[in-house]
Amino acid sequence: MSSNTNREIVRIGLVQMACGEAAEDNRKAAEQGIRQAAGQGAQIICLQELFQMPYFCQTENHEHFNQAEEVPGPTTQAMSPLAAELGVVLILPLFEKRSTGLYHNTAVVLDADGSIAGRYRKMHIPDDPGFYEKFYFTPGDTGFQTISTRFGKIGVLICWDQWFPEAARLTALSGAQILFYPTAIGYQKFDEAVAEKQAQAWQTIQKAHSIANGVFTVVVNRVGREDQLNFWGRSFVSDPFGEVLVEASSKEPEVLVTDCDLGLIEETRQGWPFLRDRRVDAYQNMTRLFIDPNET
Amino acid sequence: MSSNTNREIVRIGLVQMACGEAAEDNRKAAEQGIRQAAGQGAQIICLQELFQMPYFCQTENHEHFNQAEEVPGPTTQAMSPLAAELGVVLILPLFEKRSTGLYHNTAVVLDADGSIAGRYRKMHIPDDPGFYEKFYFTPGDTGFQTISTRFGKIGVLICWDQWFPEAARLTALSGAQILFYPTAIGYQKFDEAVAEKQAQAWQTIQKAHSIANGVFTVVVNRVGREDQLNFWGRSFVSDPFGEVLVEASSKEPEVLVTDCDLGLIEETRQGWPFLRDRRVDAYQNMTRLFIDPNET
Repeated sequence: MSSNTNREIVRIGLVQMACGEAAEDNRKAAEQGIRQAAGQGAQIICLQELFQMPYFCQTENHEHFNQAEEVPGPTTQAMSPLAAELGVVLILPLFEKRSTGLYHNTAVVLDADGSIAGRYRKMHIPDDPGFYEKFYFTPGDTGFQTISTRFGKIGVLICWDQWFPEAARLTALSGAQILFYPTAIGYQKFDEAVAEKQAQAWQTIQKAHSIANGVFTVVVNRVGREDQLNFWGRSFVSDPFGEVLVEASSKEPEVLVTDCDLGLIEETRQGWPFLRDRRVDAYQNMTRLFIDPNET
Repeated sequence: MSSNTNREIVRIGLVQMACGEAAEDNRKAAEQGIRQAAGQGAQIICLQELFQMPYFCQTENHEHFNQAEEVPGPTTQAMSPLAAELGVVLILPLFEKRSTGLYHNTAVVLDADGSIAGRYRKMHIPDDPGFYEKFYFTPGDTGFQTISTRFGKIGVLICWDQWFPEAARLTALSGAQILFYPTAIGYQKFDEAVAEKQAQAWQTIQKAHSIANGVFTVVVNRVGREDQLNFWGRSFVSDPFGEVLVEASSKEPEVLVTDCDLGLIEETRQGWPFLRDRRVDAYQNMTRLFIDPNET
């Protein structure tokens, strides 16, 4: 593999939090985490999915819709001065009220001057016992996109998106150098062995997104017990080769800061030139749910 | 996750070989490996990529085209009685001469009665120093497909295909329960640390195909030094959760046999229902090489 002669360092911050009931406390903890990461030189700082509130999707309760907010709105207004003050890019996942009766699981990206650089609305929405997201969130219509910021071209995907190679691929193909996955994943009362297998599979598939696309992957998960769920933390960063650069605790809140050399993307893609060889002439059926034996 | 109440066991055999110059010796070793696997109850047995010959793509040499054969041809004629005798499905990767001047890197699947169940022509063709495959092999036109056999619905992909999530996805969507990857991958005179990273990335992305699609993945690589390349063996089987069930040596030829419970596919896909939630309305750009900023 060629040596990397074009170093282009960006310092990334991950704020892994344990959320309590009081939104104000969660916001304070988030600001504290952001300031801590920025204090260590982080330039792009990512918060976890729905960072201002407990993971409320464990039940279907209409009252939770009252927590949704518009964009721009309270969160961008509160965080925009902070981004500008610290000169950092912020990835802020929130519960978006788009219109009356229309809600999304969204991440807003603030550029380092405090302006809104872009927003992503979660495209893949889960629905499993304890994760009743289809009740709350309309699947996004932003598509998979790259958001240009002062410190790099980034893609944002959210939690359940992490299981879909298509989401990572399409975001990378639109130019993203780093994929961010704000997340809220945990286990119920399974035995520890199953929980460990789940966490391993979760890390494996996201490392694979790095490998397949030659990009950095940054995953920020919440931690701690909320009602029926134990969120497993383990926020991490993978380089374009799928190597884990840093990994957080599975038990405690933690702020991670690490350098990503964007020059490695060119080096990795030259070494293993997957983008050169995709058979785009043969991928039409990716837009089908299944290729039924009797319909081909 | 639900308990698996529908067990459906199929026993898989992997023949990891070190190839010498003499085709006859390689064929004998392959038959020996097949007999050994069948003797341990294997029902579907996979050989490595181009199992009858050294990996000749280390140079561009027109003489090597003389090794190509038709299908049906010598290999199917030799192996068909063996498949029928042992009552096993065989996956036979070979250098196919399709017509004058038209060659493919192909795998033929023989059903357990010795008949040809199907063939796959490698879709993604690499070209790197030491792997000059674009000189020899026309990219396949079979597409990604499922081949029905006596012991299960299988998909065959070959080596470089393993880096493309699209190949795994499309094969799984066509019904495959097990993905087979006959392979010839190794390293040159890199330091051991780089080689280890490569082998890790290689295993990671293939485990991820299992996870993303809820299928078994079977990888059969060659082993040993040939000219400039050290093939790293490490043939393995991953379950639908991405767990490695068995793994071969990185140094020695080895026959692996393991049970795959196809009932786990239903269980895994119900537990993590990714196929339910694919955003097929938003995947159109998978057929593009890149989504250029000024063209969207």
